[in-house]
Amino acid sequence: MTKPVVLGVGMTKFGKQLDKSFKQLSNLAVNDALKDAQIDKADIEAAFVSNVMAGSVWGQDSIRGQVFLSELGLENIAIHNVENACASGSAAIQMAVMAVTSGMHDVVLVLGTEKMHHQDKTKAFAALKASTDVTENSAVLMGQEKENESVFMNLYAEDMRLHMEQYGTNAETFAKVAAKNSYHGSLNEYAHYRKPNSVQDVMNSRLITSPLRLLMCSPLSDGAAAAIICSEQYAKKHTNELIYIESSVVMSGAKKENETTEVTTVAERAYKQAGIGPSDLGVVEVHDAAVPGELLAYEQLLLCTTGEGGRLIEEKQTYIDGKIPVNPSGGLLSRGHPIGATGIAQLAEINWQLKGEAGKRQIPTQPKTGLMHNVGGYLQGQNASVAIHILSR
Amino acid sequence: MTKPVVLGVGMTKFGKQLDKSFKQLSNLAVNDALKDAQIDKADIEAAFVSNVMAGSVWGQDSIRGQVFLSELGLENIAIHNVENACASGSAAIQMAVMAVTSGMHDVVLVLGTEKMHHQDKTKAFAALKASTDVTENSAVLMGQEKENESVFMNLYAEDMRLHMEQYGTNAETFAKVAAKNSYHGSLNEYAHYRKPNSVQDVMNSRLITSPLRLLMCSPLSDGAAAAIICSEQYAKKHTNELIYIESSVVMSGAKKENETTEVTTVAERAYKQAGIGPSDLGVVEVHDAAVPGELLAYEQLLLCTTGEGGRLIEEKQTYIDGKIPVNPSGGLLSRGHPIGATGIAQLAEINWQLKGEAGKRQIPTQPKTGLMHNVGGYLQGQNASVAIHILSR
Repeated sequence: MTKPVVLGVGMTKFGKQLDKSFKQLSNLAVNDALKDAQIDKADIEAAFVSNVMAGSVWGQDSIRGQVFLSELGLENIAIHNVENACASGSAAIQMAVMAVTSGMHDVVLVLGTEKMHHQDKTKAFAALKASTDVTENSAVLMGQEKENESVFMNLYAEDMRLHMEQYGTNAETFAKVAAKNSYHGSLNEYAHYRKPNSVQDVMNSRLITSPLRLLMCSPLSDGAAAAIICSEQYAKKHTNELIYIESSVVMSGAKKENETTEVTTVAERAYKQAGIGPSDLGVVEVHDAAVPGELLAYEQLLLCTTGEGGRLIEEKQTYIDGKIPVNPSGGLLSRGHPIGATGIAQLAEINWQLKGEAGKRQIPTQPKTGLMHNVGGYLQGQNASVAIHILSR
Repeated sequence: MTKPVVLGVGMTKFGKQLDKSFKQLSNLAVNDALKDAQIDKADIEAAFVSNVMAGSVWGQDSIRGQVFLSELGLENIAIHNVENACASGSAAIQMAVMAVTSGMHDVVLVLGTEKMHHQDKTKAFAALKASTDVTENSAVLMGQEKENESVFMNLYAEDMRLHMEQYGTNAETFAKVAAKNSYHGSLNEYAHYRKPNSVQDVMNSRLITSPLRLLMCSPLSDGAAAAIICSEQYAKKHTNELIYIESSVVMSGAKKENETTEVTTVAERAYKQAGIGPSDLGVVEVHDAAVPGELLAYEQLLLCTTGEGGRLIEEKQTYIDGKIPVNPSGGLLSRGHPIGATGIAQLAEINWQLKGEAGKRQIPTQPKTGLMHNVGGYLQGQNASVAIHILSR
């Protein structure tokens, strides 16, 4: 069976882009990816398009991908619309992996495009709430959300409080994750935020939901990211630098095995599928929608033992020149979080790091393997979807 | 490479079901499909869930499948949410085909659930509009839609007018399609409408958009349909009656080749992929969202030559005891059209007809091959998505 290869990637700058339409953002990312892959658009056989908010925020539903791609002149291709809350981008990547490994298609496009900024700011926050079970009353969610705040920040705040209680982690330690990612983001021309923040800047920012502060939370962003994924045979005709997708695991309603979290269950499957362990990884992109998301991921992905997440950031091991660089892109916190595009932006970053094309934020060792961790939604007390992909060169 | 097999199907009655939740409808369809497949829910490795309106009508977005399935106790599976307007069900089937043929999964679930009835009836019609490019002004769409009517009926009315002009087809001939499907629907215990209508009943019904009348249009329906799709190896352990998916073609932005329509382009690919021609078909389910949808499909699917669609229904060739039975289920017109479930209900009907399990509406010859035609959305003057699957036993 053929292995899927990432042949090219492209993305727009992430940020507030009220002046750009879904079509314009999509065109920019797709054209970049085509140029990077050095193929013609006529070679694309199918597209898997990830978006979360076009319907609820902009009234464009049902055929989102067809509309986003309608000015590119792609003909006679299948366009599939895929949604999985904040893990939508990874869900689309898994579709592409299946399309290529099944032999149904040789070359496919993955696109994530999101416009979260709207003149009515409450729309995006209302849309986030639709990523939970709207018919259920969760004690964590009920009555705590405000019109201009994400319901998910309550969940992250709870995770942060628990870690502080159980392991004596300080708020400053969590703030160091944000400081690191803002430094990485300052080196990334695609990032929403380019200003490096000190730990003190983070600790001085406005309290959102105690103990989470503003600079500990990812922003609303607009942007698009795209990737061309193809079969190994096709890729070998175009390049000698093959970036393989070694594992693709998406799980919903995960059962917590061995008293670990659902993320660890998925990670263990992904490591097994790839034949790669956590100590083999040279770069990791994690879902830091808020700082505890990253610190807990250190532990859940088995980069360290449970409770030791704080030590990793205190020892600066997750900086780009550290032992195991995490979020060299700046992560969701600084690169930004245009929900449907995030997973694909993670793929782009891992791809660039493996190829040595990450510019000022390049990890000096040019890693051979990387992992991306993307989670989405909230249901029955856990992530509604956990997606992990491992790449290698 | 393994061929995908339909191991079991299940569905709820379609109709107005304000008293049933998404979860209840989903549970009924999935449990029926599991029973039909004679497998345990623990065997399901992934689910592809199709829905169009849960977000816009009910505020449940982003993790629709996870919520719909949350009471079934499926553990450690991937749940993917798939959307492609009225062709969403077929898009989910294609995902399942890829999941199985890629070897990523042995057994997967496909589920389509839709609740279109809401106390505020305008919501469903507004949602239908979101299946077009909302940023574009189409001459056909602009200013013609009313609050309580589907924008798509204007398009179907235009198709009907054109056929009447070009080929001298009568409105009564189109009405005969509705009369036939209402007769088939009267034999189908799952159908939304069970009353057989005469041609005169159809012609006497209220004018919607000239020349389309009420009984020529499919209704808003609530309901769910599910299928278990698996690898050939897995299926052979469970049954000797294998229903194969011989081809799966989904196309968006199709280029019209040889001056035929985009549907014909897709049909020709599907026939080639299956090694089966139109004259080999023993049963066909087509997308009769309105009567011209079926009559034109006769021609577009090459069941007859262009302009000859009227003759097929005049000669009653598409009745269950005719030469080429079309919509034995009653079609969208009578079985109903809960958008996200429709494609999967078509799959269920073809499966039952091939197995000889269609009860009172069983095609006497028990066909060996069947085709399902499912289209969705509107973009740049044509269907935004065309999906054709061919099945055989």
